[in-house]
Formats: sequence, C-alpha cells, structure tokens
Amino acid sequence: MAAPTLEGVIAYPVTPFSPADGQVDTERLAELVDRLITAGCHAVAPLGSTGESAYLDDHEWFAAAETAVGAAAGRVPTVVGIADLTTRNAIRRARFAERTGASAVMVLPLSYWKLDERELVRHFTEIAGAVGVPVMVYNNPATSGVDLSPELLVALAERVENITMVKESSGDVQRMHRIAQLSGGELPFYNGSNTLALEAFAAGASGWCTAAASLIPELVLELYRAVRLGELDTAREVFYRQLPVLQFLMRGGLPTTVKAGLALRGLDVGAPRRPLLPLDGVRTEELAGLLAAAAR
Amino acid sequence: MAAPTLEGVIAYPVTPFSPADGQVDTERLAELVDRLITAGCHAVAPLGSTGESAYLDDHEWFAAAETAVGAAAGRVPTVVGIADLTTRNAIRRARFAERTGASAVMVLPLSYWKLDERELVRHFTEIAGAVGVPVMVYNNPATSGVDLSPELLVALAERVENITMVKESSGDVQRMHRIAQLSGGELPFYNGSNTLALEAFAAGASGWCTAAASLIPELVLELYRAVRLGELDTAREVFYRQLPVLQFLMRGGLPTTVKAGLALRGLDVGAPRRPLLPLDGVRTEELAGLLAAAAR
Amino acid sequence: MAAPTLEGVIAYPVTPFSPADGQVDTERLAELVDRLITAGCHAVAPLGSTGESAYLDDHEWFAAAETAVGAAAGRVPTVVGIADLTTRNAIRRARFAERTGASAVMVLPLSYWKLDERELVRHFTEIAGAVGVPVMVYNNPATSGVDLSPELLVALAERVENITMVKESSGDVQRMHRIAQLSGGELPFYNGSNTLALEAFAAGASGWCTAAASLIPELVLELYRAVRLGELDTAREVFYRQLPVLQFLMRGGLPTTVKAGLALRGLDVGAPRRPLLPLDGVRTEELAGLLAAAAR
Amino acid sequence: MAAPTLEGVIAYPVTPFSPADGQVDTERLAELVDRLITAGCHAVAPLGSTGESAYLDDHEWFAAAETAVGAAAGRVPTVVGIADLTTRNAIRRARFAERTGASAVMVLPLSYWKLDERELVRHFTEIAGAVGVPVMVYNNPATSGVDLSPELLVALAERVENITMVKESSGDVQRMHRIAQLSGGELPFYNGSNTLALEAFAAGASGWCTAAASLIPELVLELYRAVRLGELDTAREVFYRQLPVLQFLMRGGLPTTVKAGLALRGLDVGAPRRPLLPLDGVRTEELAGLLAAAAR
Repeated sequence: MAAPTLEGVIAYPVTPFSPADGQVDTERLAELVDRLITAGCHAVAPLGSTGESAYLDDHEWFAAAETAVGAAAGRVPTVVGIADLTTRNAIRRARFAERTGASAVMVLPLSYWKLDERELVRHFTEIAGAVGVPVMVYNNPATSGVDLSPELLVALAERVENITMVKESSGDVQRMHRIAQLSGGELPFYNGSNTLALEAFAAGASGWCTAAASLIPELVLELYRAVRLGELDTAREVFYRQLPVLQFLMRGGLPTTVKAGLALRGLDVGAPRRPLLPLDGVRTEELAGLLAAAAR
Repeated sequence: MAAPTLEGVIAYPVTPFSPADGQVDTERLAELVDRLITAGCHAVAPLGSTGESAYLDDHEWFAAAETAVGAAAGRVPTVVGIADLTTRNAIRRARFAERTGASAVMVLPLSYWKLDERELVRHFTEIAGAVGVPVMVYNNPATSGVDLSPELLVALAERVENITMVKESSGDVQRMHRIAQLSGGELPFYNGSNTLALEAFAAGASGWCTAAASLIPELVLELYRAVRLGELDTAREVFYRQLPVLQFLMRGGLPTTVKAGLALRGLDVGAPRRPLLPLDGVRTEELAGLLAAAAR
Repeated sequence: MAAPTLEGVIAYPVTPFSPADGQVDTERLAELVDRLITAGCHAVAPLGSTGESAYLDDHEWFAAAETAVGAAAGRVPTVVGIADLTTRNAIRRARFAERTGASAVMVLPLSYWKLDERELVRHFTEIAGAVGVPVMVYNNPATSGVDLSPELLVALAERVENITMVKESSGDVQRMHRIAQLSGGELPFYNGSNTLALEAFAAGASGWCTAAASLIPELVLELYRAVRLGELDTAREVFYRQLPVLQFLMRGGLPTTVKAGLALRGLDVGAPRRPLLPLDGVRTEELAGLLAAAAR
Repeated sequence: MAAPTLEGVIAYPVTPFSPADGQVDTERLAELVDRLITAGCHAVAPLGSTGESAYLDDHEWFAAAETAVGAAAGRVPTVVGIADLTTRNAIRRARFAERTGASAVMVLPLSYWKLDERELVRHFTEIAGAVGVPVMVYNNPATSGVDLSPELLVALAERVENITMVKESSGDVQRMHRIAQLSGGELPFYNGSNTLALEAFAAGASGWCTAAASLIPELVLELYRAVRLGELDTAREVFYRQLPVLQFLMRGGLPTTVKAGLALRGLDVGAPRRPLLPLDGVRTEELAGLLAAAAR
C-alpha cells in the first residue's frame, strides 16, 4: 500500500448536459470544476455516481473525463470514476483516464449477476493492472448491487500495489471501524455517505467524497476544518446546520437534486439523463428553502 | 390489455461467445434456439438475464437478436429481452427487436440511481410507445436493483395498451396473488423464479420463463403438462426431481451454470463475459451429478 | 421420526377474555373448540400465536389448556402451543399440557437475546425430553425473533425421538422444499402462513395451521378437500375467494382480527390483551365486507 | 419535556444467579452496583437487557430492583429497566421500581404480535401515567421486535410529561440525527449500541448506556472524558483500543459475555438463564485475550 495522496473534501461535480441536444456540455463541466477548486476543495472527482458515469456512452465519457481533468489543470488531484458492467470496458475507461492525466481512478463494480469473491478480485486486479495510477475501490451497494466487505477491501489493497484507497458509501460506520482494524490504520478510507460526514471523520476517515460541495462549499469545508482542529462542538454545530440539505440531496438522488440546486444557484447544467427526471417544482422549492436556511 | 399470446414454457437461451475472440457466436446461438423449439418449448426468449443482455454492446446485441429471431423462424413466439440503464438505448434496442420480427419485447428497468414511480412509468411508457409489439414488463429486483410492485405492474398494463404481460422474478408468490387480484385475473403473469415453478403454476401463472429448458427440457415440459392436466401429485413429483438442478442453476448465476451445463451436454458455448467467470471444476462436477440424478 | 399423526386443517382458536375483568373466559373457549370440531376441522390447537399464549400468566395458561383439551374430548387431536422465553417455564407448560391429555405440544422458541444453534438444540431437547407426547417445532421468525433453518429443523427431528413435526410460518415456500429434500420427504411439515395455503399444499404440506377456520371454516376445508382430490383449478378458485380475508387477518394480527370477526359472527370473545387493542370501527367494517364477499 | 437528569456513562450490571439454585444472587448484585459507582460511572441501570430483565419472574425481578436501587443508596441516579409483553405487567413493575426509590424507569416494548402506533402510544402513555418518575423510552428492535421511529419517540416525549429521555440501540446514527432535528436538540438521547459509542457522542448523545463498564470501566470513562473535553484524537484512540472488546460483547450477547468476563475478573456471577448458555471455553479464552490487549 502506498501513502495516502488524498485528504479532505473531494468534490464530485455533476456532468452537465446541453438542454438543446442532451449531449455532454463540456464547457459547463469545465466551469464547475473550476468553481470547486476555487472554493477550496482539496480534490475533484468527475464521473462519479453524481456525474452519471454509468449513463454515458464511451464517446461522452471520454469527453467528460478529458474536460474535467484538463480544467483542474493540476491545481488539485483528480479522481476519475468508472462504473462499468464489464471488465473490458472498465479497463478501456481506466486507461483513457490515465492518459488524460488523472491523479487516480475510482472503480465501482456494477453488477447484474451477483459476483463472487473470486470474480471481484479478478475484476479489480485486472483493472488496476492495466493502469499505473492509484486506484480507489468504491463500495456502494445501493447503487451497484454488490457489497464489498471490509475484509475484501483490505485484502485487495494488500494484494494489489496500486489499490491504495477505499471509498465507503454503505452508510455503516462499523465498516469503517473494520477497515481501520484490519489494516492496522494503514489503509486510508473515504466517506461517501453525506449524512455520515461528521461521524466518519470522528472514526478516522481521510476524506469526504461529496457532491454537496457544488451547492454549499463553505459549510462542507468548515466541517472538515473544525474536525481537523479538534473543535468537536463547532463541527457538530456546522454538521447539523447543513444536515437538512445533505438529507435532501441523498433522498432525491444526487444528479437530480444537485442539478436542481445548481439551477437555483444560477448555473443551468441541464436535466439528468432519462429515465432520471428533473426535480419537480414542489421539491425544487423545498430545496431552495433548505439552502437558504443553511446559509443563515 | 390485449389477450395473452404466450403460455407454457418460455425458454431462455444463453448467448454463446466464441472461445477464440469472445465475440457473439451467432451460429451456436441459432443452434440453441433450434434445439429449444425442437424439444417442444412453447416460446423462446433470447437476450434475457440468462442471455447476458446487459453485458453486450449495441452491435453484439443487434447480431444476437437478429440471429435468434431468425432461427425461430416463426415456429414459436419470440420474446427479446432488453435491460438498459438509459431510456434512449432501451428504445433503440426495442425498435431493433421489432424490426427483426420479434413477437414481443421484455423490458427490465436497470437502475443505478433509484427510480421513483414517476420515472418508472415514463420509462416504460416511452419504450412501449416506440414499438407496436406487445411488451412484457419484467420485475427482477435482485438483478435490476429496482422493485416493481404489483400495483405498479398492473397500473402500467392498464395505462399502456401494448403492455400486456408481466414477468415476476422476485420469488415471492404473494406478488402473483396481488397481480391476479388487482387485475381481476385479467393480466397474464409469468414466473421467472425457477425454484417457484410448481407454486407459481398453482397460483395461476400463464407460463414459466426458464433457462433450465436448455439442460433438462423433458422435466421442465413435463411439469407444465402435469399442472395443466391437474395431475398435482405428478407435478409435485417431477418438480422435486428437478429441484436440485434448479437450485444449483440459481445459486451459481444462470449464464455461468447453464453454459457449464451445455458444455457437459457436449455443446461448447464459451464462457460468460468478464467479470463473470466460468464455473470451476468442483462445481461443474457437482452439476454433472445433479443432471445425472435428475435424469434417472 | 415417528409417523405423522396430523393431517388437514388444524384450527387455532383465540383465547377469549371476559369483557368484565379481562380474565380467561373458559366457557367461551370450550364453545369455540366445539364449534371448530363440529365444523369438520381435523385438529384443534389452543394457545398458539392466535391464542395469545405468550401473553398469559401461568395460572391463566393452565386454565386455558385444560379447558380446550377437555372440550375436544378426544374427538380430534389437540396440539397445545407453548411460547416461553425461558426453558424452565416452557418445560413447566409442556408437562402441564401432557397431563391435560393433549395429543401433542407445539413449541415456539421466543427470544430476547439471540440464540445460537447450541442453545436452540438444548432448549428443544430439554423440552421434548420432559414429555412423552410428540413435539411440533414451530418456526415463526416474525413473532419469535428467531429463525429456525430447515437444516436445524430436520436435524432436531432426526436427533430427538418425539420431535416429529415442524410448522413453518416464515412464509417462504423454499423452506418447505428444503425440509422435504433434507428429510427425504419423511418429516411432515405444516404451513402456518395463511396466504401461502394453496402453494404449501402444492409443495406437499401435511396440513394447514390456521385461525381462519374460526371465521370461514367451509372455505378453509374446501381448499383442503380440493387439493387432496387433485382438483387444482377448484383449489385455486376457492383459494382466491378466501384470500382477501386471509390477507386481512394476517395484516391486522390474528388475535385482533379474529376476535373482531367472531364478534361479527355473534360471538363475543372480548378484546385481545393490552398492549393489543381491539380492531377499530373502520377496519371492522372492512372485515365484515370481506367476510360477506367470500361467502358469496 | 423536563431537563435532562442523566449524563455520561450509564452502567448496566448483569443480574447474578446463584450457581447453586439459579436464583437471583442479591448479595452479588449489590456488590456489582457498588463497584460500578466506585469506578466512577455516572448512573447505574439494573434490569436492562444485560440484566436479563425479561427472563425474570415477578418475584425475582422485584428482589433485583430493590437490591440494586438500595445498593446505589442515592450516590448516583438509578434507572430500572422494564421489558414486558403486557401493559399490565409493565405497569406493575414500573410502580414497584418507583417505590424502591429508582430515579427513573427505562421501558422497552416487547412484542409478539406487531404493535401499531396507536398501540405503542397507549402502552407508553399508560405506563408513564402510572408513575411519577421520569421514563426513558428504549428502542432496541433487535431484541424487542418492535422498531420505534424517531418520529414516534419525539412525539411521545412531547405528549407525555414524564417521558423525558430516549435510548437508541438500533445502531443507526441517523436515528440520533433525526431525534436531534425533530426535537430541536431538546430531547436528550442516549446511545445503547456499544460499537457506536464514539460516533454517538460526536452526534450529541447525552450518555452511553453500557454493560462494558463492568469489565473495562477506565476505558469507557476515558472515552467520555476525552469527548467532553473536545479531545477528538484521544477519544478516537481510546475508542479503537476498546473496540475489540465491545465488538466481542455485542456479538456474543451481553449477559453471556459480561458474565464470562466478570468470572475472568474473579467475580462469579453464575450463568445466564436458559436457554442462554455460558460462554464456551474457546470464546472465554478469546475474551481474556481481548481484555488483556485493551488494558495494555
């Protein structure tokens, strides 16, 4: 296992689609990446769950990866997300991401037929073996349909040299405890469950992977700052302040809600891709109210 | 709702891949379809879960659909399976299936971000609206990540003219009861859970969607025959005789186990697509033993 | 394993409480038992889940057991239910049931702290060892908090001489398949999930344990008759006719709904014991409507 | 809602049984309570889940309550646990606890038949109405079989004057967030899930209800101290140090494991009550090893 390279707030931009033709709006994507870096986020991770990675065809995905990494321009690390059903396509995208200059790739193992451990190990080993950049293995059973146990995550990191980080989005802090225990505290883990942000940091998470940074960057960054300084009361206060927004984002699906929030912030990034539909009017108003309340 | 057009054993062939280059082996696929029809199956459904539909790129999928429907040559109805994450690609494939002459399409709503009812209704309505053939809505929460309630299934059939059949693979016979109740017995439902075959017929299923027909067609067809004749004791006996095979197939994943079984039957259809791996030696021997025991 | 002694419809009476003082109304209980036998039920099982067995103190429980077994007067077999948290109290009640002349006892393993297999085996072995009558082991994870696997159920029957029957109320017909497979069809199993009645018989259940016999005895008995004669279409028709009643009973909790139904039938058996509350007016009307519709 | 009266480490003693006759060993219980107070615990809670409250008959329960409250002798607050299936018996025990001088009662709603909200509200309201001391409502779905939502918990505290505290043992920190949000931070909540101790404090829990205080009081108290002083790094370090012990205790069931641990500490408190069995030799050695490692 290599040393951790990422720490703090890792911001996940949406992938904007042109309202005109539904194609990836690379100009807008570059703008989003720039805003996240300017706001102070410690890394940017395009094409995550929030970035609708799995909904893009190869051509679109390549364009988005190239644009986002290019826009970061080395100012902060970039982590490009890969969520493919087949090993061969995951490899193709991982290699492309590396060629664009991504600092790392994050790999989520989509499943249709359940994968056993042998299949999962082979899948990750082949992808990691195809690139030279560090790989973050991403556990998100709710979206991927496959649940990577702490035992498997740590075994992968021990076995494969460039698997050096794990992202835990099961929402169960006990998983983080197990990762810390099994790796002797050596394997950096990142929290992908927004409403667990406070507790994950308490449990020792190296970072918070979040789409909320697009909407409430100050609150997101302030939570991290307070935790790092050991100001637990402040951290709790700022967490509860932003919690209604975080709950709303998760409840409605990140691409849907974050795109609606960006429109409220004056940035039109189009709708999520069908079958996902834009947030309806009632809920958009609710989101506007929550954003206003959090800002107070 | 139109009248039911399908009844009995609906056989799901695997999609053979060439051992040489991993490409779809259309010649072998045609052979499989022919065998299923010759064996007496009442319909053939290529590109289902068993057919690794979701793992194929467009080009491969088109070739498989064309081949399978062509091989059936109108001898029995054909139902082509569609499992796509985006509405636009599901429509593209549905239209192609219709052009090849498929009798119907079966649509499974893959999900990454959870879909709400509004999104699901829109998804199915748009796909059904894009074709003229009947649509079978397919509920399989374990593979698709989305669970279609009996209420939603019946509402879709009532609302959309060419949604005329539902396939239930949740494995819960209470879902079938609800569909029968909500539709006043008018909406034909098909069972996709092999180990529920006996009980689903008892509950009134119009058919059994099964990959087992590739390996043990006589037993599969005999179960249906006994049920239709009201020979419950015979049906139970023949069901328990094949049950160990059905349990094995489901436990190991249908493409993996059925491909291994076909190899045991002398038909090399290649391996399932990565990350799926071929059945290992120990389990292949176990399958051979179960097939032999069922044949006795 | 001994030969099965029970077959058909095993009727579970409620335990009536006096509206005046909440005490067990033994006179009414005797009347209920008599009605069930007169209606044609093949066995009677007082103090089951429906009989609020776990809610009674020892004195009350003893009175109810004695009354019910006495009222049956040997006309049909009696199975007395035991649901206790401690082994010692379960033994005390089992011995008492035997002394009253019960044909068998049914034992549900209540749990607070989860029991491991060693503890469960010891619990059942000690209870069965304390009596001479046959023991029916009862799996009902939803009410008891402990789930007895088919493997454990069959192992208990193989290991302990007077454990000769199992009752399955998980609602999962696959459990019944496993019991049949593991015991080579030798261990009689009884279905305790009302809405699974048709399918459980199809799968080979020896009997149906049901509280519905108190309200719709003709339909319950007719389903069994049709199944035994192999009249599957009739069985399905009569099952769907009574299904709305069965669904209602299960949804609302059996003591609550059956007591309300008996009041509608003109037999006041009091309210269930607190914290259980009587069925409210709206739902009582709904039940009246369902009973009327089933009778048509 | 009254002001919170409890804060910090609330220690849950086991109920010792005499090895000779299995009866409650009141002398030993008094000794346990004294040790917990001497060690510095902020409150003592006899007859909780750890105290096998639900396994005792009335006579035993009364003796244990009287002994424990008497032994505390007003040095710290006492909270007496009640876990009964019927409302009437819960009231009887609550009244007895009040008469012994308990500072508060903690009520867990056991269930056999599922309780709806109307039944739960009535149950708690009647119990609280029967006593004058504050009531802590206890949610522990794994042992009780009923899950009290944050909405219900907060509604109960708003509606009933002496329901002033809730204990959350679902293990889901999001429940705590909801309680804080719904009550505007006014309803004190206590964490009953040992392996969530660090994160629950981070989320704002007023106290930690724990049986671990009997075995590793210094570590338990040090975690609380560090959190209160805002020393997050120390808190995390001391939490991970004791975590293997906490995980072991929860995995094996608290009465079983804590009694084994007390024997290792030289205090023979007998076995848990059947069907619970004493910890076996292998696991007792494992526990000894974990206790030794945590002490280092």
